[in-house]
Amino acid sequence: MLNVVNKEQAVRIVNEQGALSLPIQKVSLADALGRTLAEDIVSCENIPAFERTTVDGFAVHAADTFGASESVPAQLEIVGEILMGENADFVLKSGQCARISTGGMLPQGADAAVMVERTDSQGSLCLVYQAAAPFENVTRTGDDIACGACALSKGTVLTAASIGVLAALGVREVPVFRKPVLAIISTGDEIVEGTPQPGQMRDVNTHLLAAAAQAHGCQVQCCGVIRDERSAIQSALSAALETADAVLISGGSSAGARDMTVSVIEEAGEVFFHGIAMKPGKPTIFGMAGGKPVFGLPGHPLAAYFVFRLVVCAWLASVLRQPADVPCRSAAAAVNIPSNHGREEYLCVKYTPNGEIVPVHTKSGIVSVLTEAQGFLKIERNAEGVFKGETVEIYEI
Amino acid sequence: MLNVVNKEQAVRIVNEQGALSLPIQKVSLADALGRTLAEDIVSCENIPAFERTTVDGFAVHAADTFGASESVPAQLEIVGEILMGENADFVLKSGQCARISTGGMLPQGADAAVMVERTDSQGSLCLVYQAAAPFENVTRTGDDIACGACALSKGTVLTAASIGVLAALGVREVPVFRKPVLAIISTGDEIVEGTPQPGQMRDVNTHLLAAAAQAHGCQVQCCGVIRDERSAIQSALSAALETADAVLISGGSSAGARDMTVSVIEEAGEVFFHGIAMKPGKPTIFGMAGGKPVFGLPGHPLAAYFVFRLVVCAWLASVLRQPADVPCRSAAAAVNIPSNHGREEYLCVKYTPNGEIVPVHTKSGIVSVLTEAQGFLKIERNAEGVFKGETVEIYEI
Repeated sequence: MLNVVNKEQAVRIVNEQGALSLPIQKVSLADALGRTLAEDIVSCENIPAFERTTVDGFAVHAADTFGASESVPAQLEIVGEILMGENADFVLKSGQCARISTGGMLPQGADAAVMVERTDSQGSLCLVYQAAAPFENVTRTGDDIACGACALSKGTVLTAASIGVLAALGVREVPVFRKPVLAIISTGDEIVEGTPQPGQMRDVNTHLLAAAAQAHGCQVQCCGVIRDERSAIQSALSAALETADAVLISGGSSAGARDMTVSVIEEAGEVFFHGIAMKPGKPTIFGMAGGKPVFGLPGHPLAAYFVFRLVVCAWLASVLRQPADVPCRSAAAAVNIPSNHGREEYLCVKYTPNGEIVPVHTKSGIVSVLTEAQGFLKIERNAEGVFKGETVEIYEI
Repeated sequence: MLNVVNKEQAVRIVNEQGALSLPIQKVSLADALGRTLAEDIVSCENIPAFERTTVDGFAVHAADTFGASESVPAQLEIVGEILMGENADFVLKSGQCARISTGGMLPQGADAAVMVERTDSQGSLCLVYQAAAPFENVTRTGDDIACGACALSKGTVLTAASIGVLAALGVREVPVFRKPVLAIISTGDEIVEGTPQPGQMRDVNTHLLAAAAQAHGCQVQCCGVIRDERSAIQSALSAALETADAVLISGGSSAGARDMTVSVIEEAGEVFFHGIAMKPGKPTIFGMAGGKPVFGLPGHPLAAYFVFRLVVCAWLASVLRQPADVPCRSAAAAVNIPSNHGREEYLCVKYTPNGEIVPVHTKSGIVSVLTEAQGFLKIERNAEGVFKGETVEIYEI
């Protein structure tokens, strides 16, 4: 009854079926960190908007300084001073110079600046002891961001740097996608919210997945722990579908509980796959209900996290128009890492002091293995594992 | 008049003089992402608290299955079923087995589980076709987190994974440091908040530094743009000192403006250094006023960002008891990267398709260079640069 797909198929199905147009919001720069740009930001002006110096000294015609040296300084006439923030609204003629501070605007005609340390001035006479090349010590108009250039692309996750660029361009209201709203339902008769009795476990998945969703730019609705009863899961799902953009149902771990989740989703809509040929994450379910994606994640927290990271995050990136996930670095394996055949395997790794990687012991890791991991690697379906010394791509955990 | 230090000295002075005990707050798991743990979290219990299976099948005495095969199955008596979440409050005797689902609690006596696919059952008879080793398909008590172990250390920045661990341990109110409050003052006569006139620039530093501070776990107070006037800077600083834990004053770029910032800090307290032998970031100032750290950052946004990242972040890590900054990866240089002698140099870099690094063109980058950068490297004081092919450490931008 399983409709098992491989991970690439899973991501393609999820992105196609779960396609979603999030509305665009305007937020202030103070609220923009971590949000995703919903439009290209094209610059309507040059940054800087004028030629400016990068030193304290004198604005000059470079040609006037050619050949200048300690013994034969160029002699220029000081015709003014340009104060910071002031419009340099005069024309500098050949043979003239003007005092200027770092960041000051070059007057028309000037094409270079000389550092004050390379000059001497007496009254209106300035001696320049070093030749300046054209545009030396000058930031030219549009050098940082040219008018008409796409300064930031749609889908950019806004960092301090990109917020700095928006500030430079005068964008105060930033068009971002509304945060996707993820509802999170934990199921499982062994899972409790309060103090566990013998045989019971505390609910980890709600908190783990909620934090992971927050970290990936989502707003979260926690629906609590639902018992493995058809009617309870049905009503939790239908309540979640009313307000959320997508629903994550984690657990139950047993085959019977999984089948119930599948049939509840099927009844509410359509199931597209039940099973991904990957480890961990095999019992993953994906369906659409009420026009919204419903992800059935494994009950085991480590497996649930990997499915979130690999499948749900791929969907989020697609919806938010973000670039696809790429490895963050490559490293050599410090030991042989055997793998099962026939299924893609994802493995938590950490770095040795000399930058090689070793697997984090996962035999029975429920969740603590994730705090020790510094990344994860993928072992291909048909590979027998990774050999000691082999270079592998590492992804961010 | 400059009291110039190198970067290591700068960080030591800042951490010693600026030492600060932030109060501890309790936050819920839903609000814990990105916060910094203020206490070690020591587990008071074993996770899992009981031996549990990792498969659907039968709980058994492993010894009863030794020698079992397809042709000579072990024959066991089915004496019960353990439902998920149920206390397995009976003793499994030799020769007996019990039905069990993934995650179910092993009854006393049982020390392994066999997968249902490796068995046949008829009435109360179970045929087991494969031997199970002791503890096969079992997660043992305390395997994930042992009672008494330090599960998370003070100074940990909370991620989804660590929030999952807190949930597993039943920690619902998390002890975190109160967010450091940073006041941000931009100065410079050329800097404006509204539309710039010729010679003027928009305020980038307030927004760049505010977002960087948010990203590093701070609460931010933006004090706006202050003109390069002694009395204006004085009153902005004294207002900021009333409510913030530390103050960042960026700009002005000119020597005169910098001197004014120094003398204002000096008047309000004490200046410990004025100048760091690094590039960018030379004109950095550090002092204490009203018992609080005051950082004078360069006016140039790129330089201000680097000083924030290298000096202010080191102080934040020290105050929040976080581990010190370490390189995030190493990579080979794709080209020769020359450097000035005599000053540590920090350089934005990006990766080539084959994982080598090249510098991001920084000639006149004001801020856009930061959005292109994928990391930065440090060139030591006495190095002539980095040679093509040389391996260098890369830090997160």
